[in-house]
Amino acid sequence: MKKAKKAKKAVATTARTSRKAAKPARSRAKKARRSHDALLAELKARLAEIGDLEGTSAILSWDQSTYMPAGGAPSRGRQSALLSRLVHERRTDPQLGGLIDALAPYAERLPPDHDDAAVIAVAGRDFAKAVRVPARFVEQFSQHGSASYDAWTRARKNNGFASMRPLLERTLELSREYANYFAPYKHVVDPLIDDMDEGMTCAAVRALFGELHRKLVPLVRAIGERPLTDDSCLHGGFVEGKQLDFGLGISKAYGYDLGRGRLDRTPHPFCTRFSTGDVRITTRVDPDDLTEALFSTLHETGHGLYEQGVAPALDGTPAGCGTSAGVHESQSRLWENVVGRSRGLWQHYYPELRATFPDRFGEVQLETFYRAINKVERSLIRTEADEVTYNLHIIIRFELELDLLEGRLAIRDLPEAWRARYQSDLGVSPADDRDGCLQDVHWYSGRIGGAFQSYTIGNVLSAQFYAAALAAHPEIPAEITSGRFATLHGWLQENIYRHGRKFEADEVVRRATGEPMTIRPYMAYLTRKYGELYDLTKVTPA
Amino acid sequence: MKKAKKAKKAVATTARTSRKAAKPARSRAKKARRSHDALLAELKARLAEIGDLEGTSAILSWDQSTYMPAGGAPSRGRQSALLSRLVHERRTDPQLGGLIDALAPYAERLPPDHDDAAVIAVAGRDFAKAVRVPARFVEQFSQHGSASYDAWTRARKNNGFASMRPLLERTLELSREYANYFAPYKHVVDPLIDDMDEGMTCAAVRALFGELHRKLVPLVRAIGERPLTDDSCLHGGFVEGKQLDFGLGISKAYGYDLGRGRLDRTPHPFCTRFSTGDVRITTRVDPDDLTEALFSTLHETGHGLYEQGVAPALDGTPAGCGTSAGVHESQSRLWENVVGRSRGLWQHYYPELRATFPDRFGEVQLETFYRAINKVERSLIRTEADEVTYNLHIIIRFELELDLLEGRLAIRDLPEAWRARYQSDLGVSPADDRDGCLQDVHWYSGRIGGAFQSYTIGNVLSAQFYAAALAAHPEIPAEITSGRFATLHGWLQENIYRHGRKFEADEVVRRATGEPMTIRPYMAYLTRKYGELYDLTKVTPA
Repeated sequence: MKKAKKAKKAVATTARTSRKAAKPARSRAKKARRSHDALLAELKARLAEIGDLEGTSAILSWDQSTYMPAGGAPSRGRQSALLSRLVHERRTDPQLGGLIDALAPYAERLPPDHDDAAVIAVAGRDFAKAVRVPARFVEQFSQHGSASYDAWTRARKNNGFASMRPLLERTLELSREYANYFAPYKHVVDPLIDDMDEGMTCAAVRALFGELHRKLVPLVRAIGERPLTDDSCLHGGFVEGKQLDFGLGISKAYGYDLGRGRLDRTPHPFCTRFSTGDVRITTRVDPDDLTEALFSTLHETGHGLYEQGVAPALDGTPAGCGTSAGVHESQSRLWENVVGRSRGLWQHYYPELRATFPDRFGEVQLETFYRAINKVERSLIRTEADEVTYNLHIIIRFELELDLLEGRLAIRDLPEAWRARYQSDLGVSPADDRDGCLQDVHWYSGRIGGAFQSYTIGNVLSAQFYAAALAAHPEIPAEITSGRFATLHGWLQENIYRHGRKFEADEVVRRATGEPMTIRPYMAYLTRKYGELYDLTKVTPA
Repeated sequence: MKKAKKAKKAVATTARTSRKAAKPARSRAKKARRSHDALLAELKARLAEIGDLEGTSAILSWDQSTYMPAGGAPSRGRQSALLSRLVHERRTDPQLGGLIDALAPYAERLPPDHDDAAVIAVAGRDFAKAVRVPARFVEQFSQHGSASYDAWTRARKNNGFASMRPLLERTLELSREYANYFAPYKHVVDPLIDDMDEGMTCAAVRALFGELHRKLVPLVRAIGERPLTDDSCLHGGFVEGKQLDFGLGISKAYGYDLGRGRLDRTPHPFCTRFSTGDVRITTRVDPDDLTEALFSTLHETGHGLYEQGVAPALDGTPAGCGTSAGVHESQSRLWENVVGRSRGLWQHYYPELRATFPDRFGEVQLETFYRAINKVERSLIRTEADEVTYNLHIIIRFELELDLLEGRLAIRDLPEAWRARYQSDLGVSPADDRDGCLQDVHWYSGRIGGAFQSYTIGNVLSAQFYAAALAAHPEIPAEITSGRFATLHGWLQENIYRHGRKFEADEVVRRATGEPMTIRPYMAYLTRKYGELYDLTKVTPA
C-alpha cells in the first residue's frame, strides 16, 4: 500500500515536471478554458435566475386565472408587477451583456448545434432586444395595455367602439414607438412580428398570405355552394365532468404527461410552462357544445407536448421553451385538427364517445359525427371558425394591422374597413362591432401588430410537419386508427420539441422537413380532406 | 367668481407674509415633516416589496401542496429558494435599518397606537432580529431542515429513530447555535419561543404550564374513571364531497369570506395568507372519519378569519398579519372547539348534518353525537387528542425540549424519556417510536424549541377571549344555537383581528380581556363542559 502510494507520487512529480515544461501554451489554454467554464457557469446561473423568476411569474398568472378569489386581484397586480420589474432588471443588467460578449469567442469555436453555443446565442439575442427599449417605456406600454384591456372588457359588452377609439389610437402610437426602438427595419411591423416569430418578417408573411389567400378564396367559395353540414349532434346537454374526462383521455393517449402537467378550467384556455417538469394546460367547458372542451383540450395539449418535450439540458436557459409562436401553434393545430379532427382518430374513439354519451350519440353514425366536427361555414367569429375559413379571418386582421401601422387606415375608420373586408372575403358582415373589430383581445391588450400571423403560420406548418412525419413513418395513419400516437409523437419530439429555442423557426422547419416553410402540404391537406367531405370535383384558383 | 379669487389671493399673500415672519421654527418643522413623509413612504415601499415577495413565496408553497404535479418539484425548490434569498437580502438591507433608525424620533412622537408607529416598531424588531443571524447560517439551518424533513418522512414509516439520531443531534446543535445569535438571554429557548410567540419567555410558559399541569392531571384522571364514550356514529362511509360542503357551510356562516379565500384539499391542513384579500385554507378528508374534514375545516377557518380580519391599512406592512402563533391558535381553537364542539352549535346544525347523511345519523340522537365529538380518551397521538388531554401532549413535548436544549437529556435517550413521560402523565406508552417521539414533524423540520407552546397558549386564550366576548355580549350563546355568529365574530374582529401585529400578544390579551393571560377561564370552561359530560361531581386538584 505504502509502496503504491510512493510510486504514484513519483508519477505525479514527473507529470508535474513535464507540465511545467509545456507551461506557456498549455497554461493559456487551461486558463482560457477555466475562465470560459467560470463565465459560462455565471451566465447560466444568471439565466436560471431569470428563468425561475419568469416561472414564478407564470405561476402567479396561472393561479390568477384558475383559483384566485376575486379579493386577491389588487395584491396579485402588485406581485406580478414586482416580478416583471425583477425580471426586466436582470434581463438588461450590463453584467449579463458583458458575460455574453466575453463568451462570444468561445461560442464561435463550438459546433453550431452545441447546447452551450445555442444558449449563448439566444441569450445574446434576448439581451440585445431587451436593452433597446428603455425601462420607462416598457412600464408605460404595459400600463397602457392593462388600462386598454380593462376598458375593452366593458366596451365589448356595450358595443362601445367609440369609447375605445382614443385608447386604440394611443396603442397604435405606442406600437409604432416600440418598433422605432428597433430601427432601422424594412417594415414597421417587423420588430413586432419578431417578438412572436423570431426571424420572420412582414415581407415573408405577405408572400405566404398572398399565395394562401389566392388559393383559399375559391376553395371557400366552392364549399359555400354545397349544402350546409348538419352538426346538431354536437349541441345539447353534455355533462361537464364527462366532457373533461373524455378530452383528457385523448390528451394522455397523445402523450401529455400528467406527472409533469395538469388540466384545469379557465374562461380562456391556455398552456403555461413553469419548467420542463411542470407544463399545465387549461380548457373551458360548454354543456351545450361538445366541441368547446374537447378541441380546446386537444389544442392546448399540442402546446403542452411541445413544452414538455424540450430537452431537460435546456431547462433553466432561455433556449428551454418553444422556438416561436408559429411553430408552437403548428403543434396545437396538428394535434387539434390534423390528428384530432381526422376520420382515423374517430374510428378509434367514436365508440368510446358513444359509450360516454349514449343518449346523445346512440343513433348518430360515425360519418355524421365526423362531418359535423369538420363543418365549414363562413362566419364572423375567428375563434369559432373551421380549418378552411380560419386563415381568411387571420389574413383580414393582418392586412388591417399593416394599414393601421402604415397610416393608410385611421382607427376611426376601422369598423367600416372591417365590415368591408369581411363582406368581400367571407361574404358576411357583422351587425355590430362586438362581432366585428371588437371581437379579439389582441389589439386591445395594448399592441397592434405581430400577434395574428402566428395562427396561420401554425396552420401551414402543422400540415408541413405532419407530411414530413408521414414520409418518415408511413404507418402513422394506421396507428392513429387504433389510438396509438407514439410514432408521431416520437418524430415530433426528435425533430422539433427537444430543440426548444436552440434553432430559430426557419431552421427547425428546414431540419425537420428538408425545405423552408411552404403552403403546399397545407393546401394539399385541405383540398384532399374537404374535397372529399364536400364532394368537390375541382377547385378553380382565383 | 373673479372677486372671490382675488380675495383668496390676498389672504394667501398675507399668509405667506406671516409664514415668512415665522420662518425659522415653522420651516424646520415642515422640513422635518416632509422628510418624515418621504422616509416613511420609502420604508413602506420597501416593506411592501418584502411583503409581496413573501406573498409570492406563499403562493409557491400553496401550489406545491395543492395542485403541483410531481415533476414540478425540482424547479419549485429552486424558485422557492430564490424567493427566500430575495426576501432575506431585503430584510437585512442596511438601508432598511437606516430608514427605521431615521424614523425612530418621528415614531416616538406619535400616539403609541398610531398605525405608523406600530409599523415602524414592528419593522424595527424584525430588522434587529434578521441582522443578528448571518445569511450563511440561515442557509445552512434551512438546508439541514430540508434534509432532516426528507429523512424523517422515510424514518417514520420504518420506525427508524436510529437513522434520525445524527440528524437530530445536529438539529439540537444548530438550534442552540441559532439561539446564541440572540445572546444574552435568560433561557436558551427564549429566542426560539420569541420567533413564534413574540415577547413570550420560557419562564412565563413554564409558570403557565406548571399551573395547567397541576389542574389537568386530576381532571383527566377523573374522566378516565368514567365509562368510555361511544363515538361509533362518527366512523363509517361519509361521501367526501358532502363532508367538504358541510364543513364549508359552517365556515361561511362563521364569516369566512370566499370572495377573499377558498378551501382546497391537502394531506396536512393549513391556512396561508397572500394578502388580506387572499387568505386560503385547506383541509383533508377521511371517508371513514367525519371529524377529520369537519374540524380541520373549522380549525383553519379560525386562522382564516383572523387573517381576513386584519385592517386593510396594515396590508403590505409587517404588521399586516396575526400577532403571534399563540393568539393565532386561540382563534383556530375557539372556532373549532369552543364554538365548533359546543352543544349550542349542534342544536342548530345537527338537523342539517342528519339530512346530509341520513343513513348514518337517522337513528342517532343529538346528545349521542355531541358526546361523540367530545369524547375524552388518553391516547398516544397529539393531533388526534381531545380538548382535555391535548395540553398534556404539549407539556410533555415542551419539557422534553427544555431537557434537550439544557443538555439534561441526550438525543439517544429521547425515545425512552418520551415513553416514561407518557406513562406517568397519560398512563399510556407507545409500542414503537412511530407513535412516540417520531410522530410530530416539528423537531424533524430542523429546529428544536419554540414550536409547541403555541398550541397550549392558544387553548388557554381561546377560553379567555370567549369569556370576554360573552361578558360584553351575553347573547352570543343564544345566537350560536340559531346559527348566527356575527356578534362573536364582530367582537373578535374589533378586539383582536383588525390590530394584526400592531400590538404584541400580551397587549392584545390585556386590551381584549382586561387582564394578562390566565388559565382561569380555560379551566372553568373545561371543568364545566366535561364535568357535565362525564358527570363529575368534584375534581380534586393534585
